[in-house]
Amino acid sequence: MKSTLPTTQMANAIRALAMDAVQKANSGHPGMPMGMAEIAVALWSGHHRHNPANPKWQNRDRFLLSNGHGSMLHYALLHLSGYAVSMDDIRSFRQLHSKTPGHPEVDITPGVETTTGPLGQGIANAVGMALAEYLLAAEFNKPGHDVVDHYTYAFLGDGCLMEGISHEVCSLAGTLGLKKLIALYDDNGISIDGKVEGWFTDDTPKRFESYGWNVIRNVDGHDVAAVAAAIAAAKAADKPTLICCKTIIGKGSPNLQGGDKVHGAALGDKEIAAVREYISWGAEPFVIPDDVSAAWDFKAQGAAHEGEWDAKFAAYAAAYPSEAAELKRRMAGDLPANFEATLQAAIAACVDKKETIATRKASQNAIQALAPVLPEFLGGSADLTGSNLTNWKECIAVRSGQPGNHINYGVREFGMSAIMNGVALHGGYIPFGATFLTFSDYSRNALRMAALMKQRSIFVFTHDSIGLGEDGPTHQSVEHVSSLRLIPNLDNWRPADTVESMVAWGEAVKRKDGPSTLIFSRQNLPFQERSAATIANIARGGYVLADAADAKAVLIATGSEIELAQAAAAALKEQGVPVRVVSMPSTDVFDRQDAAYKAAVLGKGLPRVAIEAGVTDFWYKYVGLEGAVVGIDSFGESAPAGVLFKHFGFTVENVVAKVKSVLVA
Amino acid sequence: MKSTLPTTQMANAIRALAMDAVQKANSGHPGMPMGMAEIAVALWSGHHRHNPANPKWQNRDRFLLSNGHGSMLHYALLHLSGYAVSMDDIRSFRQLHSKTPGHPEVDITPGVETTTGPLGQGIANAVGMALAEYLLAAEFNKPGHDVVDHYTYAFLGDGCLMEGISHEVCSLAGTLGLKKLIALYDDNGISIDGKVEGWFTDDTPKRFESYGWNVIRNVDGHDVAAVAAAIAAAKAADKPTLICCKTIIGKGSPNLQGGDKVHGAALGDKEIAAVREYISWGAEPFVIPDDVSAAWDFKAQGAAHEGEWDAKFAAYAAAYPSEAAELKRRMAGDLPANFEATLQAAIAACVDKKETIATRKASQNAIQALAPVLPEFLGGSADLTGSNLTNWKECIAVRSGQPGNHINYGVREFGMSAIMNGVALHGGYIPFGATFLTFSDYSRNALRMAALMKQRSIFVFTHDSIGLGEDGPTHQSVEHVSSLRLIPNLDNWRPADTVESMVAWGEAVKRKDGPSTLIFSRQNLPFQERSAATIANIARGGYVLADAADAKAVLIATGSEIELAQAAAAALKEQGVPVRVVSMPSTDVFDRQDAAYKAAVLGKGLPRVAIEAGVTDFWYKYVGLEGAVVGIDSFGESAPAGVLFKHFGFTVENVVAKVKSVLVA
Repeated sequence: MKSTLPTTQMANAIRALAMDAVQKANSGHPGMPMGMAEIAVALWSGHHRHNPANPKWQNRDRFLLSNGHGSMLHYALLHLSGYAVSMDDIRSFRQLHSKTPGHPEVDITPGVETTTGPLGQGIANAVGMALAEYLLAAEFNKPGHDVVDHYTYAFLGDGCLMEGISHEVCSLAGTLGLKKLIALYDDNGISIDGKVEGWFTDDTPKRFESYGWNVIRNVDGHDVAAVAAAIAAAKAADKPTLICCKTIIGKGSPNLQGGDKVHGAALGDKEIAAVREYISWGAEPFVIPDDVSAAWDFKAQGAAHEGEWDAKFAAYAAAYPSEAAELKRRMAGDLPANFEATLQAAIAACVDKKETIATRKASQNAIQALAPVLPEFLGGSADLTGSNLTNWKECIAVRSGQPGNHINYGVREFGMSAIMNGVALHGGYIPFGATFLTFSDYSRNALRMAALMKQRSIFVFTHDSIGLGEDGPTHQSVEHVSSLRLIPNLDNWRPADTVESMVAWGEAVKRKDGPSTLIFSRQNLPFQERSAATIANIARGGYVLADAADAKAVLIATGSEIELAQAAAAALKEQGVPVRVVSMPSTDVFDRQDAAYKAAVLGKGLPRVAIEAGVTDFWYKYVGLEGAVVGIDSFGESAPAGVLFKHFGFTVENVVAKVKSVLVA
Repeated sequence: MKSTLPTTQMANAIRALAMDAVQKANSGHPGMPMGMAEIAVALWSGHHRHNPANPKWQNRDRFLLSNGHGSMLHYALLHLSGYAVSMDDIRSFRQLHSKTPGHPEVDITPGVETTTGPLGQGIANAVGMALAEYLLAAEFNKPGHDVVDHYTYAFLGDGCLMEGISHEVCSLAGTLGLKKLIALYDDNGISIDGKVEGWFTDDTPKRFESYGWNVIRNVDGHDVAAVAAAIAAAKAADKPTLICCKTIIGKGSPNLQGGDKVHGAALGDKEIAAVREYISWGAEPFVIPDDVSAAWDFKAQGAAHEGEWDAKFAAYAAAYPSEAAELKRRMAGDLPANFEATLQAAIAACVDKKETIATRKASQNAIQALAPVLPEFLGGSADLTGSNLTNWKECIAVRSGQPGNHINYGVREFGMSAIMNGVALHGGYIPFGATFLTFSDYSRNALRMAALMKQRSIFVFTHDSIGLGEDGPTHQSVEHVSSLRLIPNLDNWRPADTVESMVAWGEAVKRKDGPSTLIFSRQNLPFQERSAATIANIARGGYVLADAADAKAVLIATGSEIELAQAAAAALKEQGVPVRVVSMPSTDVFDRQDAAYKAAVLGKGLPRVAIEAGVTDFWYKYVGLEGAVVGIDSFGESAPAGVLFKHFGFTVENVVAKVKSVLVA
């Protein structure tokens, strides 16, 4: 290898940090950082506009590692360019509560834009960020004032390209013409099982051309100048660009490079010594020679980049003060001052109207009520707009060259959800997107990632049970509501009527530190009468909807089963068994309430019966071994909804019998 | 429209049945059947080899609707060609327990090969069937004796092609060169949200060429002869083929065809009358004119097809009697006579060896022990072979032109799982495939479909908890084990040692009517001593592993937490609190045991504490409100496994304290 400073040694600094940190942790992935080192140099030293002193500078270029297992590449870049990632942090790679966890995690490491590792989702997040930039620029920029103007760069490998989600999001990015998205493909021909030719023979350039991307083929990924030139060409293109970089995985490791053994394990002391020799890297582990450090230091340039933009933004603020203030608000994720009043008025309107409608329609009414004060709403659906009802009267469909605020995501549930996460991470919008509840399965790991990343993505799921009827068991959720409740930090709401639906939307919008699911019925649900105090309790996730003096039992229900609980309570009352009815639209939120409130709602010493048109297991947490659950522990059937509810025992008679069976003698 | 018999009127018979059945149900999807009617005629009258009298004839061509919402197309074809799908069945479309549910469901309708509706999975199943045919043919055919020799035909639409899974499986089908797979693309330019050009502009032919497919472009999907010719060309190709058929959705509906309104709702009486006029279809609803009936009747041809094959098979059986018997056994899904003895010997060997190893390694040992008597084993991994350990010494990697019994699926978790379902549906193999447990999220709906279809797919998930350590929360399952337990008819096993791992493999293999997950640790787990009677109880899902006279409490644990439960029990004993330890490798199987057994295992009146390195909610079903759960209700962290178990409270001290907190005073 040549050793001409700066770029070769700059790349070798990455190699050294990566191999040494992995060795110290005795765990991690040296192959990708060593293989993409020159690509990283080309991007970070020549094109990437960012400011190490302010990782949250709003107009920074976004940089994502979709192949997140190569986290040491990112940590090395952050450390070397001047972020608050110290050499001690690098030494603590993969240790508890370090700034350098096994995979990049947003909000843990300054400069990390998203949490990656689950393959394919990083490029999806990147599509979301490029989409947010496209829309925000259209919304806020003015002639001569390009205050929203940055690129989104993503590194990705064979793994990401094999994942289905890469198809979904890259297809959509092509259709939407997201020209400021630039992906750099680490084409090293190796995945964990070995040479990919046995299981992955796509003509990837051709594939991306079929999506309408600009593809730059056959770039030598170890030639910094060639990669830099390709990036320059990509920036000039009017389409998203894939730069295909031929690389050698683990390059610099004389005995392991180019093979799968270098992918995901420490090289070992002997090979590390051989690497030092091979790449002429004399420095001790965790030491960067001064000249290399100086070449990498981006602090002054970063400050200059942000300074330029500050001046630009000041001029914008002078010319367009309200737009500037609004852009600041939007990027901060703060709600407008009139949001709470608007929400309360909308709740009051629901109370007044007493409508019996499907909660998916109630959801649309909520969107319609909130959208006028929430220009940050960015709605959408995975090709079920007319069923999910996530559009509103004034919404504008987003197309290539036609910005707007409603996305037809196509039949791409997983892609939609991960794109939404990218939008939320970028800032400026509150994304919501919808599909049928059963197809939350397709997007499940993106919901998990939103929860892990604490992002305000709002996932709307309609057609929430056997109540969808004739489409049958493939489309009928039975396990989904409970199964979403198991994901940590995901708030799930299954409202029972228009009022609960409106409150749920309000809570989801106000929740800055995590995602929510809003789960709605296909079928009509009756309006429930409530006092003002009761209405205020909805936001606590569970509350006494209808109490009874001398109650003998407590019925707990959610969503469409509230109607049944109320009817059963009426029947029981007639039979001399007064019961309390608890509505529990969000068990997640209820569980966070103080013990006194929870105890007051659930009652003391009374037997409990839960009713939900889904699997029963989860509910024993509330009803215990002495209580009972009216639910469905099998798949659904294809038939009209009314037939199915009867077939599966969602009848007053059955609930009454269950209650009587658990009454304390 | 022309009305030349037979093909035009044959196609119109489909149109009439579809629109009339949807109208009667007032629910369903007329657009696709009406748009693909001529394509169906071309395939079913000219190419498709099947026998209406024997839907399970083993060498039949497989026909799948990946766009399953068009179920009435399939039901019409089955009825018209002579399957046991009567006109009364057609009239009962979408009614409870009819043979004609909303989406096609295998084992409910004779002639339906798989359950579809969740888009993209049908084509994945088709890839699995074509893969099974390829491998089975290589294994059993002899010169002059092609007893395994059929095509797999799949219909698919824009929705399937937008889904990510279509990328995963079509990419792999191209790489493996599955030339007997023929997909017919209903290119109608419409999806539910309207004209797809706003969200789906892929050059699909180019995309499939990038996968190495043979693509036949620009076929007029309403020209029966043109479609038939394309199919003939596809059959001659040495690659999988995509036939791109330009169609008009809802063709025949003068006022709705070509638009999204005809996709998923009844046409209405007025438009139905207009269709009858427009296509010159004079017959009443649910009446097929005799000449059209006769043209469609495939019973004689079908009998002839099967008869020919019967003769072929008889010759094969004469020449190769043992191979013929073996092929019959394999297609019947019966296990070899020596399976149970082999399993019991393998369990006994585990007991003898007393190994402390990771259960993923124990799983590999189980595979190694069973593979010699199970030539139907078809293993694989989504690019984690060396981590999942689903290979065995003698296994042969499957490649294009190189059949074998282990698939490198690539980084395609969802595709792998749905392909496995297709393999299981085809018959001849028991598929198993693996990834990390967390990425079961990616494949979740395919697991659900396996459960719904009652297929013997075995999903192996390793690295099952925070025990995977440094890779961090993106890779650490906390909610997954519980969340898989919520899927009906899915048996989940999380074994604690070598013996439980071997038993779990045995149970999964023996389970003919449903899928299993086998959930294994990355880290070593100690061998547990058991009596012969106790070993026999493992297969019951939960059992008393270690009892104590005068037990004061019951500890229930699974997998890696059995070690902790045993240590805590020892500590408690020293402190004068004897406890029982229950191992619960499969809650699903345990729940199916008789009440007496369950009560005997869980004890009566004793407080219970469950221990599992995952979310706690599920366990209240067993421990009740008076019990306690030692679990993790947050995401994991990146750190070495030992550090994490301590950090999250998986210590003897913590378990002891929990037990003491629930002791009855």
